[in-house]
Amino acid sequence: MQLPVRSRLLLLLLLLLRASGLRAGERSSSAMEEIATEKEAEESHRQDSVSLLTFILLLTLTILTIWLFKHRRVRFLHETGLAMIYGLIVGVILRYGSPSSSGHDKPFSCSQEDRPFTTLLVNVSGKFFEYTLKGEISPGKIHNVEQNDMLRKVTFDPEVFFNILLPPIIFHAGYSLKKRHFFRNLGSILAYAFLGTAVSCFIIGNLMYGVVKLMKLVGQLSDKFYYTDCLLFGAVISATDPVTVLAIFNELHADVDLYALLFGESVLNDAVAIVLSSSIVAYQPTGENTHAFDATAFFKSVGVFLGIFSGSFMMGAVTGVVTALVTKFTKLHCFPLLETALFFLMSWSTFLLAEACGFTGVVAVLFCGIAQAHYTYNNLSVESRSRSKQLFEVLHFLAENFIFSYMGLALFTFQKHIFSPIFIIGAFIAIFLGRAAHIYPLSFFLNLGRRHKINWNFQHMMMFSGLRGAMAFALAIRDTATYSHQMMFSTTLLIVFFTVWIIGGGTTPMLSWLNIRVGVDPDQDPPPSNDSFQVLQGDGPDSERGNRTKQESAWLFRLWYSFDHNYLKPILTHSGPPLTTTLPSCCGLLARCLTTPQVYDNQEQLREEDSDFILNDGDLTLTYGDTTITANGSSGSCTAPTSLDGRKTKSSSEEALEHDLGMGDNEVTSRGTRLVFPLEDNA
Amino acid sequence: MQLPVRSRLLLLLLLLLRASGLRAGERSSSAMEEIATEKEAEESHRQDSVSLLTFILLLTLTILTIWLFKHRRVRFLHETGLAMIYGLIVGVILRYGSPSSSGHDKPFSCSQEDRPFTTLLVNVSGKFFEYTLKGEISPGKIHNVEQNDMLRKVTFDPEVFFNILLPPIIFHAGYSLKKRHFFRNLGSILAYAFLGTAVSCFIIGNLMYGVVKLMKLVGQLSDKFYYTDCLLFGAVISATDPVTVLAIFNELHADVDLYALLFGESVLNDAVAIVLSSSIVAYQPTGENTHAFDATAFFKSVGVFLGIFSGSFMMGAVTGVVTALVTKFTKLHCFPLLETALFFLMSWSTFLLAEACGFTGVVAVLFCGIAQAHYTYNNLSVESRSRSKQLFEVLHFLAENFIFSYMGLALFTFQKHIFSPIFIIGAFIAIFLGRAAHIYPLSFFLNLGRRHKINWNFQHMMMFSGLRGAMAFALAIRDTATYSHQMMFSTTLLIVFFTVWIIGGGTTPMLSWLNIRVGVDPDQDPPPSNDSFQVLQGDGPDSERGNRTKQESAWLFRLWYSFDHNYLKPILTHSGPPLTTTLPSCCGLLARCLTTPQVYDNQEQLREEDSDFILNDGDLTLTYGDTTITANGSSGSCTAPTSLDGRKTKSSSEEALEHDLGMGDNEVTSRGTRLVFPLEDNA
Repeated sequence: MQLPVRSRLLLLLLLLLRASGLRAGERSSSAMEEIATEKEAEESHRQDSVSLLTFILLLTLTILTIWLFKHRRVRFLHETGLAMIYGLIVGVILRYGSPSSSGHDKPFSCSQEDRPFTTLLVNVSGKFFEYTLKGEISPGKIHNVEQNDMLRKVTFDPEVFFNILLPPIIFHAGYSLKKRHFFRNLGSILAYAFLGTAVSCFIIGNLMYGVVKLMKLVGQLSDKFYYTDCLLFGAVISATDPVTVLAIFNELHADVDLYALLFGESVLNDAVAIVLSSSIVAYQPTGENTHAFDATAFFKSVGVFLGIFSGSFMMGAVTGVVTALVTKFTKLHCFPLLETALFFLMSWSTFLLAEACGFTGVVAVLFCGIAQAHYTYNNLSVESRSRSKQLFEVLHFLAENFIFSYMGLALFTFQKHIFSPIFIIGAFIAIFLGRAAHIYPLSFFLNLGRRHKINWNFQHMMMFSGLRGAMAFALAIRDTATYSHQMMFSTTLLIVFFTVWIIGGGTTPMLSWLNIRVGVDPDQDPPPSNDSFQVLQGDGPDSERGNRTKQESAWLFRLWYSFDHNYLKPILTHSGPPLTTTLPSCCGLLARCLTTPQVYDNQEQLREEDSDFILNDGDLTLTYGDTTITANGSSGSCTAPTSLDGRKTKSSSEEALEHDLGMGDNEVTSRGTRLVFPLEDNA
Repeated sequence: MQLPVRSRLLLLLLLLLRASGLRAGERSSSAMEEIATEKEAEESHRQDSVSLLTFILLLTLTILTIWLFKHRRVRFLHETGLAMIYGLIVGVILRYGSPSSSGHDKPFSCSQEDRPFTTLLVNVSGKFFEYTLKGEISPGKIHNVEQNDMLRKVTFDPEVFFNILLPPIIFHAGYSLKKRHFFRNLGSILAYAFLGTAVSCFIIGNLMYGVVKLMKLVGQLSDKFYYTDCLLFGAVISATDPVTVLAIFNELHADVDLYALLFGESVLNDAVAIVLSSSIVAYQPTGENTHAFDATAFFKSVGVFLGIFSGSFMMGAVTGVVTALVTKFTKLHCFPLLETALFFLMSWSTFLLAEACGFTGVVAVLFCGIAQAHYTYNNLSVESRSRSKQLFEVLHFLAENFIFSYMGLALFTFQKHIFSPIFIIGAFIAIFLGRAAHIYPLSFFLNLGRRHKINWNFQHMMMFSGLRGAMAFALAIRDTATYSHQMMFSTTLLIVFFTVWIIGGGTTPMLSWLNIRVGVDPDQDPPPSNDSFQVLQGDGPDSERGNRTKQESAWLFRLWYSFDHNYLKPILTHSGPPLTTTLPSCCGLLARCLTTPQVYDNQEQLREEDSDFILNDGDLTLTYGDTTITANGSSGSCTAPTSLDGRKTKSSSEEALEHDLGMGDNEVTSRGTRLVFPLEDNA
């Protein structure tokens, strides 16, 4: 077994030998040189193994403790908070426990007149060695370069987060969106994610700029801190990650709408935050004055945002579509292993494709996950479904806890922290105000158009649930080259710690304090006492106005749903209605190619799958009430409903709806969603 | 979107600007420099994504074609052979299709007097950049360094194979050893793996040395080629990998003994080959004459072999034991996700632990897999068992096909091939003779002691099944710095291609030509017509001599089985017999700690699990026949068998045996294994 001390002595010996001019013979000296280089490489490899082992130990401890907590029903500390604590402990041990090394690896200085090349060839006594560019280091830190081998080894290249760790997490989030409630609240979710994040970013950015100015005034600022840096901080810190809260919601079966809003918002705002931070970084004003507003650069940034977002969206959607087509037209489902492997590869390829084209892989992977869940999932065999779910679940679990452990570790292993009390306090205040400005005004405006108002207690819970996590950390650690970025990173780390431990720990008490119902059966929603029921049943001006509002708010979605149900799903999955009926006759050949025999067999199966998707919300049913009733003219090739019994005479979207609504002669009035036909009197 | 051409023009522009002394201002020039470096980094990142995408495309094509082949029952081309073909095609495209780049990345030469450092600091006009040592390159290839970006990007560091790709493959092999037949043929497998590989290595090495001498004679040899290089080649090429053959055996349900022999041999000889090649590399004779036999160095190499092998074995076994204990004493099985994640982490940690201690991770992972399958598997919940199996199965599948695709690619992307016809032809002859010298003599000696002789057709099949694959390739590509190693690598590649495509494709015809039975039900073995049955039933000198031989040949195994069944399994799993009964009374406290309540409940369950393990071979039953009958005295705390009905009065190993033997009043004579009690007359 090699020890660091021994190899260092050996190298020292070598140096001495060379210095004193002793040569034991050409071959043996070059052999010794080779051995020396090999030993260094071995040593480096061994340190790599030890550092990875450290993380495995952390993860193992975390798993065992999670089990213990679940066993004892401990809810104040979630697995992510736990992983951070263990990371902290190990960080302390590494920082103050491991010996610092210096001396033998004193870097060699070599001057170059030109720009740095990616590859360097170094001539050492006739032998050539190849070096690759690692990165720039600031002059003040040169002596730190080889300070502590162990700390360096456990410090990963930030791109590891974006290329290896975040994709499984984000994909799993997209793949497991509870579709029904997600789409029911789609408008609100989109509003919170896009508008809300932009608002939050802007407000936090400006508040922090004020804080920075204050710091400059009291002489606390050692280096430049631009307005764009503040905005970047705003974007980075706006990425919420309420893992803890959602886990508790899941466990206690808290209100499903609230869950959908929080989950949907957190998933989408991660995507928005990444692209926003990229566009802010891309904001390169020409000229010296970076404080002046450069309209060209601003619109270029907006263009970058839209371009990257839509490009990544397209990548993700395209891969989802391709996978769906492949799984539809091959009999791969007979071979679960092949099917699962293919599914995994195609999802991974989204990421690489997006990165290769200059878009953002993580965002693409999110939309790929959503598309896969929506289309491809239906084509997989039963075994492949569970296999792929389990595969992504375990990858997600490991990656997430790895990142949180690393966060804890980074507090001690990261060598360029800059903690500034004013900045930190200012940041906490800013995120509080930013969250408030994000949630309350938006909720007010959304409530003007929503059926189920977002109550005050929901808004307070959402306000409270602004935890920061993996995404904020990854975005902050991405670039820590300058003073301002290092300060932002250190502050982000503290914010994550505080929100995950303190806020996360306070979730359960908060739930009871705000009287948010738990123990909800997702399939029973909405509860019969919901006012939608009353409105539906009544006649009069209120219901009419209600009807009109509901129709408007759901128009976009209604459009999407018809398109998806009648065209996309039949093309990409084995579900009906058969394209041969819905496409115009000129596309008959195409329709026949794309329609598989299973369509006709799978009508039964379809209902169950789609019931996840078909909303049970009052307003949408009302809308569909409209569609159904005026079906004779408006729905193209839909066959007219002639009787309740002859199912074959109805269009399949109507059948889908009816089945999902559980229509039967006996189940007409119990739920708000069942009032399609009685509405004939209203329309 | 960035194009390589554009970024190159930009850089050229930069260089021109610098050269002409134009400066647009301190900040903007350094900004441009930053942009230039960033663009290079982006470009590099994009190329990385494209190269990975290439592999994903290869794997996807392979999967789809595999499905097609399975669908059409094509057996002449296995998935690994297919992956290689696709790799070849893509390799051709990359080699002759992608533009070579040169010029802008002309490496910078910098002289150093001393030895190469791991880190280099380069001063570029006041900014410092950090470079890391990549490796040594031979002077003749300097101009090739930046020849073709794309080819470089798809050429991985050889350590990727040993650190990322091989572990899942080897672990899965260990985890899925069909225990019953493996242990039934354990002695032969060990002989083939250890002795056989050593013999093969030695013979091939010497034959190749003759070939090399011949080449030198006819002037075909351009550089040095030592005896140790030939031996290394022998070790590398002795690692067989009959994936294709085994897959076909599996599909056709060919003879289980043959399957066990081949599979077991291939799995263990991979381990032996790695360690053997490491010890050959470690053979560093002192003095100038490397052709002379240096006894010290030789014994040092032997020591290295034994040390690494046993060290890796211990690591693997220890991790298996620890995982078994953890899964036994926690209720993790209530949480399949946690259990699977833990199982995965602990198995991975074996690898890192072994690497950190200077042993061989791959070998450790093999023994870890075997230990996990033997102990930990019994402690997992039903869902975790399938989850972990599926997880490792998909990892194995992806890694294996990735390596084989890479092999195909490497024929065109590897830039240092040296094809020498004499060497290649000599190598083919050498491996043929080496395999023959490996199989036939050993089989002869083994047959002297075996119950089921290894028939001639089995021996021919084993001779035929000497396919080379992933391990030989990985070992060969590990070090391609010198002329001899490059020639060895190129030859190994060709050997792999030939054996996988031609030999692999000829498996099915060979099976029928050799009249090897297929369609065998593994649970029916041994067939009733086997002569063991006859020997058992008969009396007389033959059976007695047979008895004595069988007892001797199984003594070691019998010892192991008792130890394992009575002590190891009860400690590490929930199986009986309870330690409270088997351990002496002084260890009572320890026994009580280690015995879980499930032991008493799980007696039923135990039988099924152990039936995989408990041999149904005549000789072992006879041995146990002895044990059972003389149980009163010889088996320590075993309770005497009083009647067939009162199960509680028997020791659990007897119960285990009886249950597995399907003892009941009605099933006494039908199988060779059922003759325990009638033997009372013989003993």
